[in-house]
Amino acid sequence: MPEEFIQSRQNPRVKMLMKLQERAARKKLGLFTVEGLRELSRCIETKGAQEIYFCPEFFKSDEHENFIRDVRRQRQIPLCRLSEGAFEKISNRQGCDGIIGVVKQWDTSLSNIKLPQNGRALILVVDSIEKSGNLGALARTADSLGADALIITNAVCDAFNPSAVRASQGALFSMQIAQAGAAECQQWLKANNIRTFGAHLQAKKKLWDADFSGSSAIVMGAEKDGLGPEWDGALDEKIIIPMSESGLSDSMNVNVAAAICLYEAVRAKSK
Amino acid sequence: MPEEFIQSRQNPRVKMLMKLQERAARKKLGLFTVEGLRELSRCIETKGAQEIYFCPEFFKSDEHENFIRDVRRQRQIPLCRLSEGAFEKISNRQGCDGIIGVVKQWDTSLSNIKLPQNGRALILVVDSIEKSGNLGALARTADSLGADALIITNAVCDAFNPSAVRASQGALFSMQIAQAGAAECQQWLKANNIRTFGAHLQAKKKLWDADFSGSSAIVMGAEKDGLGPEWDGALDEKIIIPMSESGLSDSMNVNVAAAICLYEAVRAKSK
Repeated sequence: MPEEFIQSRQNPRVKMLMKLQERAARKKLGLFTVEGLRELSRCIETKGAQEIYFCPEFFKSDEHENFIRDVRRQRQIPLCRLSEGAFEKISNRQGCDGIIGVVKQWDTSLSNIKLPQNGRALILVVDSIEKSGNLGALARTADSLGADALIITNAVCDAFNPSAVRASQGALFSMQIAQAGAAECQQWLKANNIRTFGAHLQAKKKLWDADFSGSSAIVMGAEKDGLGPEWDGALDEKIIIPMSESGLSDSMNVNVAAAICLYEAVRAKSK
Repeated sequence: MPEEFIQSRQNPRVKMLMKLQERAARKKLGLFTVEGLRELSRCIETKGAQEIYFCPEFFKSDEHENFIRDVRRQRQIPLCRLSEGAFEKISNRQGCDGIIGVVKQWDTSLSNIKLPQNGRALILVVDSIEKSGNLGALARTADSLGADALIITNAVCDAFNPSAVRASQGALFSMQIAQAGAAECQQWLKANNIRTFGAHLQAKKKLWDADFSGSSAIVMGAEKDGLGPEWDGALDEKIIIPMSESGLSDSMNVNVAAAICLYEAVRAKSK
């Protein structure tokens, strides 16, 4: 495979890569970008890549050289070198490391989710999350606490957004992810006998008194407003995370709240 | 009090405000800046402010107008208007809202920390945290879970860093904060009969089996490397947060890990 070297910022492929920063273009082309050696390596392990763009002038270590050399040797993923100017145009990061992959989006339908057969599934549902960085962080948290899947409902930002990919530190590639409407998700949870738990400031039941013994889904709402009415009425249990009464902060960070709920469910299920 | 209006970016007060972005200048002058209406309002409630700089061109709502009008009426904090160009120079934020206060640093010695008298104190110790945003987020987490104090040891970034102030969402002003060396902190914890708990990937004891019944300090290490030898040998209990074995992410975010440990201690103490 001859390796291309693109020098112009106006090259149509550079323009296509820039377009992939936008959700509409990502959706239309069914592709997204994964920037950075660590993230792309993780992506290739589980999801592969369509092509890799690189700019040696930005490489940060020998690892970057070695990575490109290995890809070249294996001849499975086409490589394309970019000039500094062209690479800067497509990079989304301060202090980029000169590596970006283009990856095919996969099917994120609910019907693809495989549940464990032990009747003790643990799912994180996140509704109307506004910041893509939070979405990625939530994926990392769900992954690190061993949730079986992350379901994104009413997606304000999609899972393939570059900031979400980055913040997930690879979790988006390793865990099961679905994107769906809230009603569709609720039906699916019911059909699979998964009880839903949502944090609510007016709830009486403390998180540690919730019954997580069966299959459970923790449902987290938007950063500012929490769960909207579409979810609020559909919860099996409303719980409160015991918080400081003296503190000035109005609320917990959504990722921290999700982590605490998942941890409590893991603790309860371990018994 | 006559209100000044500074138009030049070269004005010495503008230069002084810019200097406060640097740790050395903050330390020398004993001051720091608090940017944003919400953060500054919270700061004024508990810590006051020396002076307030504003630029009406950047105000985002009537609340901003009202805030400045109230300050003007109360005549306690001097106001100074800045031109757009001058304000942009001192602002640290994208999409600034035209309000920055200068606040006097307070004494963050360990000797100022007041412990509850019930022998069930809960402290978060964070060692060698590298990112100021993480430091602020940890303060918010400690505050929201009702920790009695946050102790920062081997500070790579200080609590008065603008990014830390911002990420704390006001928690830095409402909770007790100390900055100390690790050895000094360890002595203080011992003298106050506070047991120390640290997360460790090789630990055998699971977090939910730790004994948090007495006064407890959760000790968190740096983002990448965790606890260094200075702390590792000084812990009363090493615990492991049960994590996914299948996940790709190497580690949990430091703020998520701290939140889970604090939650578990709160749960244990509630019994």
